[in-house]
Amino acid sequence: MPAVNRADLDFMLFDWLGAERLTALPRFAGQSAEDYRAFLDLAERLAENEFLPTWKPSDSAEPALGADGEVRLHPGVRDAVRAYLDAGLQLATVDEAHGGMQLPITVGTAAMACIMAANIAASGFPMLSQANARVIAAYGTPRQIELFARPQHEGAALGTMCLSEPEAGSSLGDITTRARPAGADEAGRRFRLTGRKMWISGAGQDITPDTIHLVLAKIENDDGTLPAGTKGISLFLVPRLLPEIAPGGSGPNDLAIAGLNHKMGYRGISNCLLNLGEGTRHRPGGEAGALGWLVGEPGQGLAIMFQMMNEARINVGLGAAALAWRGYLLSRDYAFERRQGRPLEDRRAPAPVPLVRHPDVRRMLLAQKAIAEGALALCLYTARLADLAATAGTEEERSRAHARLDLLTPVTKSWPSEFGLEANHMAIQVHGGYGYTRDFDVEQLYRDNRLNPIHEGTTGIQGLDLLRRKIMGDGGAALAALLEEVRATADRAAAGPGAALAPGLRDAAGALEQAARSATGAADPVMPLAHATAFLHAAGHVVVAWLLTDMALVAGAPEGRLWAARHFHDTELPRVAAWLAPLGAGSRAALDAPDGAL
Amino acid sequence: MPAVNRADLDFMLFDWLGAERLTALPRFAGQSAEDYRAFLDLAERLAENEFLPTWKPSDSAEPALGADGEVRLHPGVRDAVRAYLDAGLQLATVDEAHGGMQLPITVGTAAMACIMAANIAASGFPMLSQANARVIAAYGTPRQIELFARPQHEGAALGTMCLSEPEAGSSLGDITTRARPAGADEAGRRFRLTGRKMWISGAGQDITPDTIHLVLAKIENDDGTLPAGTKGISLFLVPRLLPEIAPGGSGPNDLAIAGLNHKMGYRGISNCLLNLGEGTRHRPGGEAGALGWLVGEPGQGLAIMFQMMNEARINVGLGAAALAWRGYLLSRDYAFERRQGRPLEDRRAPAPVPLVRHPDVRRMLLAQKAIAEGALALCLYTARLADLAATAGTEEERSRAHARLDLLTPVTKSWPSEFGLEANHMAIQVHGGYGYTRDFDVEQLYRDNRLNPIHEGTTGIQGLDLLRRKIMGDGGAALAALLEEVRATADRAAAGPGAALAPGLRDAAGALEQAARSATGAADPVMPLAHATAFLHAAGHVVVAWLLTDMALVAGAPEGRLWAARHFHDTELPRVAAWLAPLGAGSRAALDAPDGAL
Repeated sequence: MPAVNRADLDFMLFDWLGAERLTALPRFAGQSAEDYRAFLDLAERLAENEFLPTWKPSDSAEPALGADGEVRLHPGVRDAVRAYLDAGLQLATVDEAHGGMQLPITVGTAAMACIMAANIAASGFPMLSQANARVIAAYGTPRQIELFARPQHEGAALGTMCLSEPEAGSSLGDITTRARPAGADEAGRRFRLTGRKMWISGAGQDITPDTIHLVLAKIENDDGTLPAGTKGISLFLVPRLLPEIAPGGSGPNDLAIAGLNHKMGYRGISNCLLNLGEGTRHRPGGEAGALGWLVGEPGQGLAIMFQMMNEARINVGLGAAALAWRGYLLSRDYAFERRQGRPLEDRRAPAPVPLVRHPDVRRMLLAQKAIAEGALALCLYTARLADLAATAGTEEERSRAHARLDLLTPVTKSWPSEFGLEANHMAIQVHGGYGYTRDFDVEQLYRDNRLNPIHEGTTGIQGLDLLRRKIMGDGGAALAALLEEVRATADRAAAGPGAALAPGLRDAAGALEQAARSATGAADPVMPLAHATAFLHAAGHVVVAWLLTDMALVAGAPEGRLWAARHFHDTELPRVAAWLAPLGAGSRAALDAPDGAL
Repeated sequence: MPAVNRADLDFMLFDWLGAERLTALPRFAGQSAEDYRAFLDLAERLAENEFLPTWKPSDSAEPALGADGEVRLHPGVRDAVRAYLDAGLQLATVDEAHGGMQLPITVGTAAMACIMAANIAASGFPMLSQANARVIAAYGTPRQIELFARPQHEGAALGTMCLSEPEAGSSLGDITTRARPAGADEAGRRFRLTGRKMWISGAGQDITPDTIHLVLAKIENDDGTLPAGTKGISLFLVPRLLPEIAPGGSGPNDLAIAGLNHKMGYRGISNCLLNLGEGTRHRPGGEAGALGWLVGEPGQGLAIMFQMMNEARINVGLGAAALAWRGYLLSRDYAFERRQGRPLEDRRAPAPVPLVRHPDVRRMLLAQKAIAEGALALCLYTARLADLAATAGTEEERSRAHARLDLLTPVTKSWPSEFGLEANHMAIQVHGGYGYTRDFDVEQLYRDNRLNPIHEGTTGIQGLDLLRRKIMGDGGAALAALLEEVRATADRAAAGPGAALAPGLRDAAGALEQAARSATGAADPVMPLAHATAFLHAAGHVVVAWLLTDMALVAGAPEGRLWAARHFHDTELPRVAAWLAPLGAGSRAALDAPDGAL
């Protein structure tokens, strides 16, 4: 069966979000809904024909590091990503000035959802590369763009993001990768980098000749020390293959894949320990140190990298949503086909009935549907915010979209990751014992999805980002603006067939607002932060309930939309109060329990 | 590090449950707490020295089916189980009359927890065998006991349970394995069985020469049809190797492993498709059909098998609890060792602090502790009920214990399975990216534990068992008796340092009672059953909150007990109301949504 349901996607994109209205903006002038549909057709074909067939094989034969230090991917993954690049999908949202299609991010995101549903691991190569090239296009010098973004646009290189180190995962201020000045050329200031980068997806790959690494490192002080904290971090372009302008000319850069991580799932993409400047394999220009070109100014590294990080965070949520979606579709089909047991109301029925006749199975299908469609809607909505933040007609609209995007990024990253995994858990349950075997797809969906609450900032980090920076940081203004829209949707619902949804939505919004107020006003600012993860889940549930309601209110929406919204309101919205209760009560158990009690 | 924390286990077993008081019962006369500790020492040594070292290796090299039709286990698993049998642990709870130690089930369960924490998959062999032999001892003829239980007691055979078929998983009334009368002998009535059994753990193994299968099948009617429904099910003893008394004498029985299931985890134990009576490999006595001896009377099969099923259900919960426990211990150690980030209250601290300094990490440790210790307590409490139901001094005590055991079995099976998995999810989160790699143990714990909400009856089935049979079936009497004890514990808590726990516990008990009442009184009995899984979770949370409180009130309890109880009360008990809300509101979304809306 197909990995996605295009009718669902088209409903969200066109009927609900009105993607075609974006064509009224100057950046998208001359484009049409037909263009967008044609682009999605292309993505869907690639997903089904190239990415899906290699999803399972590349799980059992993960990337290997050869004795020559080169990484060998599963050939199917190589071919699928090659087909993607050859079809030019990486150009979807790139400026026309750089040879791109200049499509809305909203449309590019919908297309990426198709690829991710088919093969989340393989999708990582183009996803990271697109985000990498976008950073270079935004912050690089013209020559940097030509040397390092253009090959990615043309499909001759793929890009990575190199932030973490073995001893600095979530805590980037502690990185120790070191950059020493090494002259300058037409592409900018050169440095020689030494250090070790961990968790680098796509760093070792045999799809394209070159790999462009965006590396965070610290420029060493005159006395050889490194500047402390995140303000000392700078950003460097470190290609695997040096361009002609490098000292010593073109050739391999001084970097090496020192190891591969062996993961529970998500195995189609290499995840590497990358050593910079060991000097054992290559010494460009005769000196040790991987050659890199500074992007932006010294000390701006983290600020610039956050553009890529935020894009990647939204894409993590998107991947989790896509896996939830596919699990939902698979378990739905299974539940309609597989016969087992008798209906509760007629236990002496002569023959087994399809699983879907059992209320608990129906519950798990509706719950998955709500999670999958809600998560996907959240990601597409966020993607449209990214479009509007960059291209809306007025400064005020842009800044409003930007504030909303900022507020929602941690939610869009984490909500699909946590609840998409719950959805995949239910997809397995619907399959019974078969769901636990590798003969069915749902077990791999579950293993793949387990990464999403971790990478690009764990759920705990997202909770802190939301509550500390995005809410306590602005006194709750961005949240208040959001909840105003939530209430407006509740008002619209109250007047129609969704009337039953209105009170719960209003209550949940009120509870969230109240919790934000008590967090902002707390005497001890650490206490609320001990409940940041619970707050994050509660916020996500309110936002998703809002989006599900909003979609159900679209004229002509498929009837399942209203049922999924209703089920989510009945069974999931009550959790909001449960998550917020300990914050409201000022629970300090996790803070006050002595170490010996843990 | 060790797989278990003996101090925790001993606290629960002796300080809280007072296992030594069981020695006052005639069955355990002459035994002492020292005997129990010595037995646990033995189990702990076997767990650490034999079972733990082979846990990871047997995950990557799962059982294989040779061209000769024989299953090859990982040699480490073979050796570990062999060591267990050689040490005689399978005799723990067996009657002295049958050569056993006649220890309390409570003690045997605690010992099994150690083995399970070290290697859940390998533990399946002795766990199933012990339950199998107990059924034979209880329902078999003396000659059956001698032929089929004794070899298991002596370590010369292992036992399995064969219920499901490819087309009949949860729905046993639909099995089609057929039994034809084939004479009788000193061991009872003989039958020839033909059919296919699915999900048979341990059916193919090379640890002991023989395997004793307890097989559900239907005795065919004179016209060759099979009786309908569960009342037509009978139970048969089908050994892999026929005894001398069989027609044609000793030799292989007519059964074959037709395939192995390839699982997400839990890979150390074979899980087989078992074909009976294909006649291709063996034809005992010249005729096709696996020879089996009837246990009990025709049509009693399911009733007898439920003894084994219920024991296995409790052991599933125990395994899930053990995995949660080990994940908790591993992530706790990691959080104290690994340094990362700055404390929330001093973000400019000069050096990274241990993970345990971060409130969200402390939250995840306390939450895991509460789940792991709560789940383990639940299993040990249930095991003591099994002891009391069989051996308490008065009929009234036995019947009270029996009613409680019946009520709690679905909770004991499912609560640790669902929330132990949540605990393992948190254990991974504490490890960050490392937790997702196979270099650390927590990812395998998570994969292993994912089976537990499925086998021996899915969580959905347990929910129906609890709400329909155990609560609506007796008008809520067993639940009322339980909640009376919960309230008594709340009263005791109110008078001491656990005073803060009392109101929440009372509220949650009240909410559960109210929900049970509205379920029992519902006009449409199907509506409440659509919320059976949510009710099951709510009931489990109330029971676990009660047990955590009860343990915290033990004089001299480790201080962590009270903190874990407090944290669970603050953060988890509010979920009870959320789970029960849709039942209370009579939500019918899952029932009324048309198929097209799913």
